[in-house]
Amino acid sequence: MSDYDLVIRGGTVVTASDTMKADVGIRAGRIVAVAESLTNAAKAIDASGLLVMPGGIDSHVHMAQPAFGGPAMADGFESGTRSAIAGGTTTVLPFALQPRGASLRASVMDYHKEADGQSYCDYGFHLIVSDPSASVLGQELPALVADGYTSFKVFMTYDDLVLNDRQLLEVFDCARGCGALVMVHCEGYDAIRFMTERLERAGKTAPYYHAISRPQSVEREATHRAISHAELTDVPIMVVHVSGREPMEQIRWAQQRGLKVYGETCPQYVALTADDLKGLNMDASGGKYVCSPPPRDAASWEAIWEGIRTGVFQTFSSDHCPFFYEGEMGKLNPKARTSFRWVPNGIPGVETRLQILFSKGVVEGRISLNEFVALTSTNHAKMYGLYPKKGSIAPGFDADIVLWDPNRKETIRQELMHHGADYTPYEGLAVTGWPVMTLLRGKVVAEEGKILGALGDGGFLKRALSPYAVPAGGA
Amino acid sequence: MSDYDLVIRGGTVVTASDTMKADVGIRAGRIVAVAESLTNAAKAIDASGLLVMPGGIDSHVHMAQPAFGGPAMADGFESGTRSAIAGGTTTVLPFALQPRGASLRASVMDYHKEADGQSYCDYGFHLIVSDPSASVLGQELPALVADGYTSFKVFMTYDDLVLNDRQLLEVFDCARGCGALVMVHCEGYDAIRFMTERLERAGKTAPYYHAISRPQSVEREATHRAISHAELTDVPIMVVHVSGREPMEQIRWAQQRGLKVYGETCPQYVALTADDLKGLNMDASGGKYVCSPPPRDAASWEAIWEGIRTGVFQTFSSDHCPFFYEGEMGKLNPKARTSFRWVPNGIPGVETRLQILFSKGVVEGRISLNEFVALTSTNHAKMYGLYPKKGSIAPGFDADIVLWDPNRKETIRQELMHHGADYTPYEGLAVTGWPVMTLLRGKVVAEEGKILGALGDGGFLKRALSPYAVPAGGA
Amino acid sequence: MSDYDLVIRGGTVVTASDTMKADVGIRAGRIVAVAESLTNAAKAIDASGLLVMPGGIDSHVHMAQPAFGGPAMADGFESGTRSAIAGGTTTVLPFALQPRGASLRASVMDYHKEADGQSYCDYGFHLIVSDPSASVLGQELPALVADGYTSFKVFMTYDDLVLNDRQLLEVFDCARGCGALVMVHCEGYDAIRFMTERLERAGKTAPYYHAISRPQSVEREATHRAISHAELTDVPIMVVHVSGREPMEQIRWAQQRGLKVYGETCPQYVALTADDLKGLNMDASGGKYVCSPPPRDAASWEAIWEGIRTGVFQTFSSDHCPFFYEGEMGKLNPKARTSFRWVPNGIPGVETRLQILFSKGVVEGRISLNEFVALTSTNHAKMYGLYPKKGSIAPGFDADIVLWDPNRKETIRQELMHHGADYTPYEGLAVTGWPVMTLLRGKVVAEEGKILGALGDGGFLKRALSPYAVPAGGA
Amino acid sequence: MSDYDLVIRGGTVVTASDTMKADVGIRAGRIVAVAESLTNAAKAIDASGLLVMPGGIDSHVHMAQPAFGGPAMADGFESGTRSAIAGGTTTVLPFALQPRGASLRASVMDYHKEADGQSYCDYGFHLIVSDPSASVLGQELPALVADGYTSFKVFMTYDDLVLNDRQLLEVFDCARGCGALVMVHCEGYDAIRFMTERLERAGKTAPYYHAISRPQSVEREATHRAISHAELTDVPIMVVHVSGREPMEQIRWAQQRGLKVYGETCPQYVALTADDLKGLNMDASGGKYVCSPPPRDAASWEAIWEGIRTGVFQTFSSDHCPFFYEGEMGKLNPKARTSFRWVPNGIPGVETRLQILFSKGVVEGRISLNEFVALTSTNHAKMYGLYPKKGSIAPGFDADIVLWDPNRKETIRQELMHHGADYTPYEGLAVTGWPVMTLLRGKVVAEEGKILGALGDGGFLKRALSPYAVPAGGA
Repeated sequence: MSDYDLVIRGGTVVTASDTMKADVGIRAGRIVAVAESLTNAAKAIDASGLLVMPGGIDSHVHMAQPAFGGPAMADGFESGTRSAIAGGTTTVLPFALQPRGASLRASVMDYHKEADGQSYCDYGFHLIVSDPSASVLGQELPALVADGYTSFKVFMTYDDLVLNDRQLLEVFDCARGCGALVMVHCEGYDAIRFMTERLERAGKTAPYYHAISRPQSVEREATHRAISHAELTDVPIMVVHVSGREPMEQIRWAQQRGLKVYGETCPQYVALTADDLKGLNMDASGGKYVCSPPPRDAASWEAIWEGIRTGVFQTFSSDHCPFFYEGEMGKLNPKARTSFRWVPNGIPGVETRLQILFSKGVVEGRISLNEFVALTSTNHAKMYGLYPKKGSIAPGFDADIVLWDPNRKETIRQELMHHGADYTPYEGLAVTGWPVMTLLRGKVVAEEGKILGALGDGGFLKRALSPYAVPAGGA
Repeated sequence: MSDYDLVIRGGTVVTASDTMKADVGIRAGRIVAVAESLTNAAKAIDASGLLVMPGGIDSHVHMAQPAFGGPAMADGFESGTRSAIAGGTTTVLPFALQPRGASLRASVMDYHKEADGQSYCDYGFHLIVSDPSASVLGQELPALVADGYTSFKVFMTYDDLVLNDRQLLEVFDCARGCGALVMVHCEGYDAIRFMTERLERAGKTAPYYHAISRPQSVEREATHRAISHAELTDVPIMVVHVSGREPMEQIRWAQQRGLKVYGETCPQYVALTADDLKGLNMDASGGKYVCSPPPRDAASWEAIWEGIRTGVFQTFSSDHCPFFYEGEMGKLNPKARTSFRWVPNGIPGVETRLQILFSKGVVEGRISLNEFVALTSTNHAKMYGLYPKKGSIAPGFDADIVLWDPNRKETIRQELMHHGADYTPYEGLAVTGWPVMTLLRGKVVAEEGKILGALGDGGFLKRALSPYAVPAGGA
Repeated sequence: MSDYDLVIRGGTVVTASDTMKADVGIRAGRIVAVAESLTNAAKAIDASGLLVMPGGIDSHVHMAQPAFGGPAMADGFESGTRSAIAGGTTTVLPFALQPRGASLRASVMDYHKEADGQSYCDYGFHLIVSDPSASVLGQELPALVADGYTSFKVFMTYDDLVLNDRQLLEVFDCARGCGALVMVHCEGYDAIRFMTERLERAGKTAPYYHAISRPQSVEREATHRAISHAELTDVPIMVVHVSGREPMEQIRWAQQRGLKVYGETCPQYVALTADDLKGLNMDASGGKYVCSPPPRDAASWEAIWEGIRTGVFQTFSSDHCPFFYEGEMGKLNPKARTSFRWVPNGIPGVETRLQILFSKGVVEGRISLNEFVALTSTNHAKMYGLYPKKGSIAPGFDADIVLWDPNRKETIRQELMHHGADYTPYEGLAVTGWPVMTLLRGKVVAEEGKILGALGDGGFLKRALSPYAVPAGGA
Repeated sequence: MSDYDLVIRGGTVVTASDTMKADVGIRAGRIVAVAESLTNAAKAIDASGLLVMPGGIDSHVHMAQPAFGGPAMADGFESGTRSAIAGGTTTVLPFALQPRGASLRASVMDYHKEADGQSYCDYGFHLIVSDPSASVLGQELPALVADGYTSFKVFMTYDDLVLNDRQLLEVFDCARGCGALVMVHCEGYDAIRFMTERLERAGKTAPYYHAISRPQSVEREATHRAISHAELTDVPIMVVHVSGREPMEQIRWAQQRGLKVYGETCPQYVALTADDLKGLNMDASGGKYVCSPPPRDAASWEAIWEGIRTGVFQTFSSDHCPFFYEGEMGKLNPKARTSFRWVPNGIPGVETRLQILFSKGVVEGRISLNEFVALTSTNHAKMYGLYPKKGSIAPGFDADIVLWDPNRKETIRQELMHHGADYTPYEGLAVTGWPVMTLLRGKVVAEEGKILGALGDGGFLKRALSPYAVPAGGA
């Protein structure tokens, strides 16, 4: 009888703090040994010349959500998680969205129907609270947290999702009571609406005006407001998808004052700019880059790197949120061609997150290998209650592993993608570093762009409370 | 025939920049000469040993407003302006408040009925916009600005006054269009409501909890929000009654970024603290100190002085807003004894503003005499379109003058006051420096606490556009 | 008999706080009246359409100093003060420089020999302390302060002038004891020497490398160091000729902490850049722009304006320090053509200071007329113990007045200049606003570029202690 | 034959990023496996209930240095390293100090004589450069770096060690050339001397005045200066033993600007205050707490924790620098009783570093277990070229391990110490968490306070270049 079902041999193991030449021994889907030389394995994979890293955890993805006033999102769980594993990501945390008036529990069940048995990678759910009624705050949220849905998300914009300040405070207070971590989409609804209508009145409806309608000051204001509400209620929050210096500095200011405010950023804020949205009319490709907050400019890239480098940001997520632009599916949303305000907000990215951070971060010398692992996997696991099941390569952890060729040069292009969207916003971006093989709980699920896993390989993750969700003043 | 109706002789004239031994010659209510020695005067006043300063301009007072859910304000124009001149202030800028649903023009006319012929000093009106309907924004405000009501005030809190962000943006945008300056009361409505209900649920209803219900973070958040809206619409704003370090630093940050954001502070933020609100029950005197934002603490005093010293604040106003606490009048508001939330927000102060700033500022060495004049008079005139009619001692200016004894030691107490309120929150405060005589357009209207002016001496001031209301981006 | 020797009629009088239509009455060299209409004058000047402002006070000029290792400075007192009055400046404060080993008293006497009877405008002296021996600190400085030399200057660089930290501390401590204000030239000697030698080793000797040899970080470091020494000894200091954001932010930081640190900036930091020093070889005109700190770049201009606008800087001086570059005189310093290190540090500017600030500041909308007067005259008088003799237009002040045409368009060029230097670094700069007439104590000394004053019109100013030199902790 | 010489079984392994239940397998002094269950071991240690952490690395200790004007340091290598291993530290990095005029190489050899064969734990040397002559900079330092002495230390104070700015720049530049990391002792020599003489003149000679003689502003100034020199030469530096907010904020400011400036702090800055130095005369125990920079106050503790929490500091070291105070040895330095200036600067601490950080950091909830490991071991290894030989528990690393009881409550007291000093400054400090067993390269060298290792167990560590010493601008 073998000691190990599988040994990954000869690679360089990377954790969030360490780098070592070592073999990784796997049994029953879990890592059981990291050692100089492991023998007596049922099967071995040669990882010579490769990095052996924890599979990516993408704590900010949207899948199977109803579209913003248009046709369905381009990815359900099947294509979305297929795309994830092809890109080296083994766990995703999508959102279960409560439509206004609906029960959150029922909404969660709806998302389970979409995901259960339909996923190539493991998954959990954050709860989008759009209607914080007394029963939601008093009964449903605490019960769902107890069941392993230990993080909420709230929006400060979008017609169907926006909470007012009073509601934000109540959700924050509820999170404090049940130990949930709250993710906040920080952009100010009224300011965007005001700008949008002004732009439309001026006939400025092309996709580029999406960026003009929500400048950094709008994101900064909402960030400051969310931080202030968090301070008042003494509850930790995670500010997601931070786009530039102004909101970044608000988070840093809060952190320096001792507030438990965390930050997330995304590939679009170091690889795209508002200029990508340009185009003379609504048919132009600018619409492919519409996401919120919008990508800014080169100076903002540097601000985001400063935030990464100095520890303002804990997680690097994709905010994967894919839509169709061409063909039959694209045509289902004719309004999207009339004004930027109807263009669905979101871009695909779950499959390209690791490559972009590796290439621009590690290869270009901005972060270390270990920081790469922390930003793409370990910190997500710790932040969202998945640790120590997920997030490292060490005995006891799930054998979620990506084998990574640090020297592989590739150009991102749609034909390499496995997502449902009909484009990638990173088309043509040359990167160095590419996932060679992805293992989910010890099983090879993707190799060189080929999907080897089966639908249903991925399972639901009931998450523990986040250790980061403890109030400064104590529970 | 005399050259001068009146000469003030032998005093030390102080302007916002200069200090000189000089006589001041007055003719037809205006200053016509400042000179070493003026003769041939119909009348002369000996100002030896006294400072001759521009009469105070108090750009933030409330008079004759309907009370907050209770009985009338303690001061109408008669007692309010009587109190002003007794304290050395010759111009006040109260508010004309638009009740929701009402026409602003009609509201202004109502206030004129209260003030015209009923005032001991000159006055103008800021317009409180509580209901920015299309007609208010499109017609009434521009027309009123053209008629000399060149400043607006908006509130971010109070049930009857609060504007939401969209409304704030629209009022700001309107102000930009018609060149008005917008004063903003920066405290966050939802946060206060959230805190108030929480405190009430915990049985914490004593006046002191007023301060707990609206901590600095609530004021800071609203300040940041107002600044952001001003940035988005490129419109200058004046943040009024700033109480401590946190909002002060937001204003400073905005100023350093080049935004046209101005700041005002008040005596209560360098002379009172939240501890003054303490008391075991609703009958305690704590209710006499309820104002918004609430006084903070000694560290906040220092922050306010830092803001004064480094130029963050342009004006020092009273935010005079008097109510009755004892006797028949106090009893008319029985709810005010049930919870801090029903205590009318406001304290009297128009009569004690100059003494407090002089004593704590000039005498204690924190500001110069010239800065005193700038903070109490000149800057108000410049900020609100009264310059060069008001605000200095120089040829061409109205002969609004206070003769000031810089060495007089006095203790502030209710028996010295001329306001309608039945107390002063500064009872017992020892000060050095006191107004000896007040002249309004050349007429002695108060002397040593005696009112010599007549009701109706004061007239309405149609104000010019504020030179500070010009957008950074140009009109 | 006339009431006035002279009346300036019909102009717009501007002080540091006020602007008014008024006549100015002068008797015996002093202003005795500012009034709406003055009659009975021996003589009158029509100032219709002109601004009537206090004559410029330039508190930072170098005249008749021994050159840096080369021939004499291009201006002695005759040409230097002629240039001053032609440019609207009526008081200058040059330096009396103590050579190492020499008595300071004797040095002061030497400068008096140069200046007394040789000056077209009034003057005082700052004391450059290059050798703070026990007798200098213990006897000479206190005695000189008592005699009206109430300000010191110390250098943190230059071979012949640099003080080490110990010496700086002792001079600061001495200043505290005798109530003198210390001006500090903040650039780090060792860092400059290190960079200079490195550049020379690399053959980089052209004038442009002067700027490279002393980047902002070198100025910032010395500024921080001087501030720290001032903090330790609790003594106010004035940081002179600040060139950009980095040192400006140090001063602002100190001011916000409550330290008595003042700031001065100069025309070269809003009108020249390091690019002006460029040129391929030592014969290029780059040498004409060599001054220290060097001009920086356009972003620095904005930082300087930010500092002016937010009150970081109190004075705007020329740092006039003229040398010859062409002709016989230029040839006397052959070393200056071999490396930037031997190019004399300094540029002429006493005659163009007001025009540059007026044009870029007032006309371009960055500062008000009153701030212009404060920055060019009033604040200098207050800072250096000349107030209330100098610095305003009000009864009692010396009748030092410049009549200014705010609409005159002119191009700065050498042929208009009255200085001794053979060039102006602002050659070709188009400005709006120009001095039409200059009066020194009631006498017209310059008009439309013609010198009407006589050598010896200017007298020595024994200065009072600076009210700004009082330690925070009290004397 | 066994697979492992030793297995540590059943403990909780902690690295700088991960925490796991795992066995640790050791062979030939190195860790070869971390696994769920390891069998076939020659020997096993039961670590149930214990933390298994990398042995401490103390990158800032002084041993066997000549005393400051007095008798020898209280610890040579024998007692110093004995103390280290008793406290759970397995590697120390003391200093080889170059006396002025001496060869650095010769100095290093002298220290080797003290250390080689005389050490209980592994050790390397930083090079203290006190005399950066041309030969030292040109030949000795590069050669020593090549031989594994890859870090320098420079002092900005102390009579025998201080470098002037020019020398600092040259050492920095040399470090850039040979890839060495420079540690900087940031306190300003002249300021301290100035203050010391002033205090002595006032008869203020008690130990407490040591703290008064070098306030935070003196440390802050030197920190800013060192940062500026590092910026000018584009060389990374490590600012050691940071004591409070003011220098901390300088480092943070540098880091945010993208400069490669690192920070170290020490137990004394979170556990002692200047009040500990108090005492009425020189015989008082205040002298036991004299170290530089001096401990500050409780507010500074919080600033240091803020710096730790937000990533400003990378390493937590002891700055162990022990002297005798009582008995025969204490008497050898009679001058030390005459003025604080002669009290040797330094306190023992190598044995208590881990307990203080664990107790105040981990147990009191300020840092995580993983951050504890990073601050006490991993980051030291990475910073100083010992990684991946030292600093983690993973295959390939030396088996330097401390078994730690996280629940053990103990009171620090001299009788528990193994150092040479006759006191511990932490006497009486109650801590939670204590080292139970220390292993050096697989050998148990200390257990429950008993020394089991042999003199000479420790060996010299030839270090690689620090990966942190790479200039921002590239080599």
